[in-house]
Amino acid sequence: MTDAVDLVVVGSVALDSVQSPAGAVVDALGGSAVYFSLAASTFCKVGIVAVVGDDFPDEHTELLRRRGVDVAGLSRERGETFRWKGVYSDDFSARTTIETRLNVFAGFKPEVPDAYRKARFLFLGNISPQLQAHVLGQMDDTVVAAADTMNFWIDSNRDAVLDVLGACGGVMLNDEEARALSRESNLIKAAGFLLDRGPRFAVVKKGEHGCLLAHGEQLFQLPSYPVEDVRDPTGAGDSFAGGFLGYLAHEGNATWETLKGAAAAGTAVASFGVEGFSVNGLLRASPAGLNERMSALARMCALVPPRL
Amino acid sequence: MTDAVDLVVVGSVALDSVQSPAGAVVDALGGSAVYFSLAASTFCKVGIVAVVGDDFPDEHTELLRRRGVDVAGLSRERGETFRWKGVYSDDFSARTTIETRLNVFAGFKPEVPDAYRKARFLFLGNISPQLQAHVLGQMDDTVVAAADTMNFWIDSNRDAVLDVLGACGGVMLNDEEARALSRESNLIKAAGFLLDRGPRFAVVKKGEHGCLLAHGEQLFQLPSYPVEDVRDPTGAGDSFAGGFLGYLAHEGNATWETLKGAAAAGTAVASFGVEGFSVNGLLRASPAGLNERMSALARMCALVPPRL
Repeated sequence: MTDAVDLVVVGSVALDSVQSPAGAVVDALGGSAVYFSLAASTFCKVGIVAVVGDDFPDEHTELLRRRGVDVAGLSRERGETFRWKGVYSDDFSARTTIETRLNVFAGFKPEVPDAYRKARFLFLGNISPQLQAHVLGQMDDTVVAAADTMNFWIDSNRDAVLDVLGACGGVMLNDEEARALSRESNLIKAAGFLLDRGPRFAVVKKGEHGCLLAHGEQLFQLPSYPVEDVRDPTGAGDSFAGGFLGYLAHEGNATWETLKGAAAAGTAVASFGVEGFSVNGLLRASPAGLNERMSALARMCALVPPRL
Repeated sequence: MTDAVDLVVVGSVALDSVQSPAGAVVDALGGSAVYFSLAASTFCKVGIVAVVGDDFPDEHTELLRRRGVDVAGLSRERGETFRWKGVYSDDFSARTTIETRLNVFAGFKPEVPDAYRKARFLFLGNISPQLQAHVLGQMDDTVVAAADTMNFWIDSNRDAVLDVLGACGGVMLNDEEARALSRESNLIKAAGFLLDRGPRFAVVKKGEHGCLLAHGEQLFQLPSYPVEDVRDPTGAGDSFAGGFLGYLAHEGNATWETLKGAAAAGTAVASFGVEGFSVNGLLRASPAGLNERMSALARMCALVPPRL
């Protein structure tokens, strides 16, 4: 029997091979649900719904469990775990995917464990909109669901993507996805389009340029935390999402003030994440370290408005 | 005889032909010194050091004068005014220069009028570092000089560019220039490199992504003001610089608090600038409108740091 969780994430678990100007790793722990859940685990009790192959090292499952992530929803199928291989350019400005092998992830049919169904917070990672809807339908008391997507689904299934967003309390996309889905090049207009489809809040992730949060007529903009030594940006957006939803679950609401705090939490945890390869940076994100970076962010953005 | 001014700008005056998704203009008023001085004129008394040809319409000079810009340093030479022609892409993400004709600007030898020499604030636009040094040498009591540059000078005259920066109190570059000059891809490191060369503050302009301000060990990050209807981004960086230096001159100092306010002033005035072609957006930047946008910016970035 498993405990109840506050937050459920559905997404990928992968073995990533990454090369960046700072080094390289082979078959290291990765995947959106891994980055998300490790980032969220400092803030709340998070449960993961994902699939791995029979080659997935037990030590990775053990690591998740040790960090407080509930793995009752992590199913093990015959076959190989999802593999991704990518290379970053010399200044980290571009990323090239060398290889993607979906393996067991290709047949992923997410089933939410009973113990997760009463969770009040849910994050739908970038699986197909049909599977996202399938997961949403299995939840009993979700108050805040937020959905991610990717250009592949926007291009092939735009209506289904919009339907899922309409059924969610929030949407969290990167800038490119927000532009593609809304067909608006201006991000303020793109966020407005997303809100018009139903969600109460929209977060546009802009990578090193921070994020934009929209809620009704209100806008909040937060720059990224200045990291001098980036080693591996893989999973930064998923870590941000994990910190964001984790903080909402920690506070138990999604008011405007909580949403702004969540943006700071996501930003702080993601800044730790990019300082190490695979999940090594995230593992160094302690509550004290997060508090320090969230305070520094607030100081770094504090402005007394000048008056003429 | 001309009056004393608070702030002097040296740079270009141009007739620009611009095409954007929102429309087009031909031979419209432009140039770095024009954008800068019109942006600064709401904040302080600014004098312009620049050159135009004998084809330069009197109505443009009259417009500058009517907006309070001192034109004693605007010399008129035989020949044509600097011409620039550019096209923006459909989503404003790229700009292509179609034609640049320096004309009288090619032989520009800036001479600072006597009445300007006691100004305490100076902005050196992107002329050659040798001419920037020549202007700096003509000033008597400059407290804060800030210099811009461009990749052409960084590539051909890097040492001279660094010498001028070392003699200035501040430096203001866009992200691409900051990276090229410092040879650092990380902007925090790039800003640190610039400060190590002598200036007390460094501003890195990131266009739609806002700006980064560094001063000693302190960092400040400000997003851009969200503009829904961009019409012409030409001159936005120069308008930002004009608002920034204009606000410093208005306050009469360059303390940390004043520098942060200056970033807000530059951001607000630049946001008006991009809403119209040529200088039409800037002309709509009233003190009341600027106050409103500076307050909105402060609200939009205000963060109570969460604590775990």
